[in-house]
Amino acid sequence: MVYNKSRIGRQMNAPRILAAVFILLTPPAVFAQSERARDLGIVIGRFSPGPLDAVTDVKGVKVGHVTLVSGEGRLAPGKGPVRTGVTVILPAEGDLWESKVFAGSFVLNGNGEATGLMWLQESGILETPIALTNTLSVGAAQQGLVEWMLKSHPGVGVSDDTLTPVALECDDGALNDIRGRHVKPEHVLQAIDGAAAGPVAEGGVGAGTGMISYEFKGGIGTASRALPKDSGGYTLGVLVNANHGSRATLRIKGAPVGEEIQDLLPESHHDGSIVVIVATDAPLDARQLSRLSKRAMLGLARTGAVAYHGSGDVAIAFSTANRIPHYPKERTLRLEVLSDFHMDDLFEAAAEATEEAVVNALLAAKTTVGRDGNTAYALPHDRLKQLLRKYRVVAQ
Amino acid sequence: MVYNKSRIGRQMNAPRILAAVFILLTPPAVFAQSERARDLGIVIGRFSPGPLDAVTDVKGVKVGHVTLVSGEGRLAPGKGPVRTGVTVILPAEGDLWESKVFAGSFVLNGNGEATGLMWLQESGILETPIALTNTLSVGAAQQGLVEWMLKSHPGVGVSDDTLTPVALECDDGALNDIRGRHVKPEHVLQAIDGAAAGPVAEGGVGAGTGMISYEFKGGIGTASRALPKDSGGYTLGVLVNANHGSRATLRIKGAPVGEEIQDLLPESHHDGSIVVIVATDAPLDARQLSRLSKRAMLGLARTGAVAYHGSGDVAIAFSTANRIPHYPKERTLRLEVLSDFHMDDLFEAAAEATEEAVVNALLAAKTTVGRDGNTAYALPHDRLKQLLRKYRVVAQ
Amino acid sequence: MVYNKSRIGRQMNAPRILAAVFILLTPPAVFAQSERARDLGIVIGRFSPGPLDAVTDVKGVKVGHVTLVSGEGRLAPGKGPVRTGVTVILPAEGDLWESKVFAGSFVLNGNGEATGLMWLQESGILETPIALTNTLSVGAAQQGLVEWMLKSHPGVGVSDDTLTPVALECDDGALNDIRGRHVKPEHVLQAIDGAAAGPVAEGGVGAGTGMISYEFKGGIGTASRALPKDSGGYTLGVLVNANHGSRATLRIKGAPVGEEIQDLLPESHHDGSIVVIVATDAPLDARQLSRLSKRAMLGLARTGAVAYHGSGDVAIAFSTANRIPHYPKERTLRLEVLSDFHMDDLFEAAAEATEEAVVNALLAAKTTVGRDGNTAYALPHDRLKQLLRKYRVVAQ
Amino acid sequence: MVYNKSRIGRQMNAPRILAAVFILLTPPAVFAQSERARDLGIVIGRFSPGPLDAVTDVKGVKVGHVTLVSGEGRLAPGKGPVRTGVTVILPAEGDLWESKVFAGSFVLNGNGEATGLMWLQESGILETPIALTNTLSVGAAQQGLVEWMLKSHPGVGVSDDTLTPVALECDDGALNDIRGRHVKPEHVLQAIDGAAAGPVAEGGVGAGTGMISYEFKGGIGTASRALPKDSGGYTLGVLVNANHGSRATLRIKGAPVGEEIQDLLPESHHDGSIVVIVATDAPLDARQLSRLSKRAMLGLARTGAVAYHGSGDVAIAFSTANRIPHYPKERTLRLEVLSDFHMDDLFEAAAEATEEAVVNALLAAKTTVGRDGNTAYALPHDRLKQLLRKYRVVAQ
Repeated sequence: MVYNKSRIGRQMNAPRILAAVFILLTPPAVFAQSERARDLGIVIGRFSPGPLDAVTDVKGVKVGHVTLVSGEGRLAPGKGPVRTGVTVILPAEGDLWESKVFAGSFVLNGNGEATGLMWLQESGILETPIALTNTLSVGAAQQGLVEWMLKSHPGVGVSDDTLTPVALECDDGALNDIRGRHVKPEHVLQAIDGAAAGPVAEGGVGAGTGMISYEFKGGIGTASRALPKDSGGYTLGVLVNANHGSRATLRIKGAPVGEEIQDLLPESHHDGSIVVIVATDAPLDARQLSRLSKRAMLGLARTGAVAYHGSGDVAIAFSTANRIPHYPKERTLRLEVLSDFHMDDLFEAAAEATEEAVVNALLAAKTTVGRDGNTAYALPHDRLKQLLRKYRVVAQ
Repeated sequence: MVYNKSRIGRQMNAPRILAAVFILLTPPAVFAQSERARDLGIVIGRFSPGPLDAVTDVKGVKVGHVTLVSGEGRLAPGKGPVRTGVTVILPAEGDLWESKVFAGSFVLNGNGEATGLMWLQESGILETPIALTNTLSVGAAQQGLVEWMLKSHPGVGVSDDTLTPVALECDDGALNDIRGRHVKPEHVLQAIDGAAAGPVAEGGVGAGTGMISYEFKGGIGTASRALPKDSGGYTLGVLVNANHGSRATLRIKGAPVGEEIQDLLPESHHDGSIVVIVATDAPLDARQLSRLSKRAMLGLARTGAVAYHGSGDVAIAFSTANRIPHYPKERTLRLEVLSDFHMDDLFEAAAEATEEAVVNALLAAKTTVGRDGNTAYALPHDRLKQLLRKYRVVAQ
Repeated sequence: MVYNKSRIGRQMNAPRILAAVFILLTPPAVFAQSERARDLGIVIGRFSPGPLDAVTDVKGVKVGHVTLVSGEGRLAPGKGPVRTGVTVILPAEGDLWESKVFAGSFVLNGNGEATGLMWLQESGILETPIALTNTLSVGAAQQGLVEWMLKSHPGVGVSDDTLTPVALECDDGALNDIRGRHVKPEHVLQAIDGAAAGPVAEGGVGAGTGMISYEFKGGIGTASRALPKDSGGYTLGVLVNANHGSRATLRIKGAPVGEEIQDLLPESHHDGSIVVIVATDAPLDARQLSRLSKRAMLGLARTGAVAYHGSGDVAIAFSTANRIPHYPKERTLRLEVLSDFHMDDLFEAAAEATEEAVVNALLAAKTTVGRDGNTAYALPHDRLKQLLRKYRVVAQ
Repeated sequence: MVYNKSRIGRQMNAPRILAAVFILLTPPAVFAQSERARDLGIVIGRFSPGPLDAVTDVKGVKVGHVTLVSGEGRLAPGKGPVRTGVTVILPAEGDLWESKVFAGSFVLNGNGEATGLMWLQESGILETPIALTNTLSVGAAQQGLVEWMLKSHPGVGVSDDTLTPVALECDDGALNDIRGRHVKPEHVLQAIDGAAAGPVAEGGVGAGTGMISYEFKGGIGTASRALPKDSGGYTLGVLVNANHGSRATLRIKGAPVGEEIQDLLPESHHDGSIVVIVATDAPLDARQLSRLSKRAMLGLARTGAVAYHGSGDVAIAFSTANRIPHYPKERTLRLEVLSDFHMDDLFEAAAEATEEAVVNALLAAKTTVGRDGNTAYALPHDRLKQLLRKYRVVAQ
């Protein structure tokens, strides 16, 4: 078996300790960023990215990953190998419970799980961090969020309301011993503790560790757009956990990459999913953020996504602009909200950034050998560069 | 403090073992049924109930409760007292994963949590048992369902898809030390193991243990309707976990019981919720079952429910008539589905049975002293009987 | 055939002019108000009505009716008899196109038509009057609204956007020659021109002319609630066009009126519908107004509605508090919006006012003989009064 | 002003009769098909089209256009010039009222009008032809459908239910004197009478007459996919009325055509819309057809659509496989329905056909001079061919 030597591949030569899962608490900035879309000349859309081209360009947004990797080869289900993790998004500065943000959502295809979504849709608010993980661990991730919230909010469930935090998932069972449910609530707490602003590690980290996208190795990707002053000067960032798509349909800035690269397929492949988190400092309310979520999915479609039956394709969008007090002192809130007539540039930015974030996920992910030797290959940068020239995405 | 000596009240005189939670695995038929709505002459609607006047009148439906009660008085949060539990509904005979049922839903107000709902809505199917519990334990209940499914389905997550089971909750934090998260995944397995057809224990059992409804003690209630032959001869059953409502609005078959009984109020009261599970053997598809779910909520409204902001009012309906294979051998399914033109009697039956199930929950629940001595009083049967005569619900 | 001599009954003795439809442009205040719910001691809920107990208690709301009545007996379809009309609601003072209001909606059952609803749901705004009429005339009513808007807005469709106004319907085909489509666009213009604040004519007027509700004569009904100062002091008003329900399920403040009055049934009866318009000066946004719309339907349920398959049960709610400029000069809007934590009293008020508005519709409607001699009987006030005493809705 | 001599352009040199609108009842097969996507080598996706590469490849589907063109130059609003029309889709053989088809829908952005949609969503059926026209004429189109249905169904509104037919719109006000509301109900009847199977005229015909898409002349486009036997052998066809998009975002099979052709812009341009009608003979039910509708919009996204605030982007899908009787003799329907596990190829086909139908609309449309001399330019085939070579959509 020949594959690119990857971070995860190398770890599999380390002594295997089956019982104890090796935890990588990944400080985002540690990663030497590999080539991203713009490094390769893939310039998507007409708006420019923010300084980091990441969801963390939206002030106050923090991202944390806990990466769980251990074991290799064919082990009894429940014993490994482990290729999974947790990614958390902290939407805004301060205590989100006491000072909530508006949020909206769109379910393109619902073969997935999203705790907390019913309340987000009803109330239009987000009041906890968001946790991403694998399908069979979404209950553990939800519990981790509960645990973290209870620690910092002693009144919850006594003198205060209870809570329904937001946890989402994709199925990493092709690479990961998902039956082992190796993600524990404490991993969420670790991910929150390690969450930071700044560059975001992409590819096979955190919840992206075991993901497969377009039958390449997928995972976490991010991108952002900074609207010009005369479009409001707002920033919008996207983070995806890409685990979706069939090879044939993959397009990168229009180039039919999936038709061109028909090898490097995984031996085994579950139907996938994608979670898209959109953050913005534009002053949108809940209805507008649900509208925005739909446009993220239009950007996804440009990469070739068809939203297969077995895919859980969910977008959640939030705005850091208005903060909603938990128990408002006043009966009414004074809000500054964008006019719907001025949403088009944000719509376009959401589509652009999502398209780019998916490409970034593919570019960052390294070939990964997982459960039973199943291998997900990285999108080969050299061949992609050739295709980008062939299809004039970049100058020849 | 004077209150009716109740089952739960008596248990509090037993030696207290704080660390170990005392578990009541409640075989439904053990309970001597207390007076139910029809025993008091409260005949709601024009259709007759099935033999048990319970959700289990729908052939194949099983219900199991695990009741967790321990401790009393003012304890440190997390240490008790425990007044909570788990209720499971097994929708149909056989392996639900291999042979699924159609399902639909309606969210009247979304201040709650329902795992698995996104997939239920997308696919129109139900493929796991349903678990009910308290708000902060919904992650544990979801994990319990996952655990149970993995045990019986070794291919899941390896050669087979993963799963997103259906767990719902209401907040029992006024009576229960909800922060203690005393419900564990194994309680779901115990409830499933103990699930049975036959009479269903009502009131403060299982997930209903700590519930408060219309500021009386609430909890589990059930009722059913057996349609006459010329309406198709179908059976429809409802199970509720009633934790909702403010006293003033309570009406029992139109009688303004809430206006009349203004005492017996709990000292402390969280905003509530109600879960309504509708089962039927009528051959409805997913779209029709979502329509049916709405009518359950109309029955709820007749008891006075306003669906307050802080309430999670969710109905899920399923039909046992068509069974959907997990991986169908044939490309197409041959279904027999009710014509929409013949749904009106089922609509009415769903409203009737829900209205009656809420009343049954109130009638079965016993006065309960919980966390910090908070007390939820039982609806007093004697005073209710007087009111039923006064308002001519029964003959004077 | 014995029936109460009614306004419409008497008109049938007038000379019949088949070709020309006799138009009643009804100035609302002309009607000597017949007995309304509160006149009979039917006091629904805990909040008090506004001065008029009508939707027009919300400042700025105007209502106009055009009533079309002509012909009698068995005529060729398309030739009459005519028992139909138009009712318009003008939501707010000033030019609604230039200064829009927030709006939301809820479809309890969708066997109906509502033009403009897709845009209302997307944008969260209402920018035209609302017109109600019969099912086969909803296109004409929509055109009437377009006509009126074009007259007053010369830029529309040239330098300005086009429009999609809100027209709703119920089926009056049991009494009215609905195939004749006797409502013309100009009737909408007349209704708008005649719209006024002040008391609202109820029963068989305007769009209510041919309606049947609970198998009694139905039609227009209205009610309002004025919240106390410590609930915000807001006013909420409801107008219904009641054309729904089967007799057996009718309850008036809990009294089983439908079970008690089993005679006075119409010979012929189409499946019905109900439109509920909720107006408020509480500063709600679109999401909140959709939530409010659901609660109107809970009030409807308390009267016994089951939302049959053949019924179009639609609620639209709007708020006059924030006005949204058509082309805002500023990029952002400054809004004052009610906190969701303070919506419960409004929820309850919406349910109460809707319940009362349905009763008012039934009380105001007079026995009406329509197409082919089909007769819809008025709810007999004397028998109702007896039942109200029997069931202790009023003191004996 | 230089533009390609087009059919419509030439007509403007004909004697102008302002009062009488010149009606083109377009027999679809009359049109010499201009170059379509496949003629230019634009092969979208992996499935092959049906024989006509048109919605009419689905057996039973008929399309009819009435094209209204008259006047030129600057006329008083209401007097012309007229550049509008009606397109009707007859979904299936036989009497659709007596023998309905399943249908579903998806609203990507709701700045539009769709009569009949509420009932389609509730019932999951389509029981009338679908009519497309301009925004201010949607009421007239709806009335035309009512008129046609009443003629053929004398019981409707008397012994039978009433109806709520499906009419949709896009705004052609940039080219057409939309205020003049030149479409009359009889045009719908003419379009239905002229509807035929076989090739479908595309571009500026019928409802497409005045449409602008990606700031080129747009209008009607169609395409189809014939799935291979091992995907079920089903046929799926799409018809669009393309009136949406901004130039910069246009991509044709990935080639950034909009970035490359920045001239040929219309002087004036209203925000647009797109209607997508998906027909299939695959046995899908209503829920599945709504899922399918979403995938049509993913195909739209691949052409660059962002679904701007001012756009009404609506997809309706129907299946001719199961026919639902109006008043079923039996209580239950026996249906053969595709398993959801076999929908992926249909999902992909819907995306592919929609992407291609939009391209076909652009290719077929001719440069059109309309109201006040506003000109929408045709996508220039020669320049497009160069770009297709440059971006390797076709071999160099």
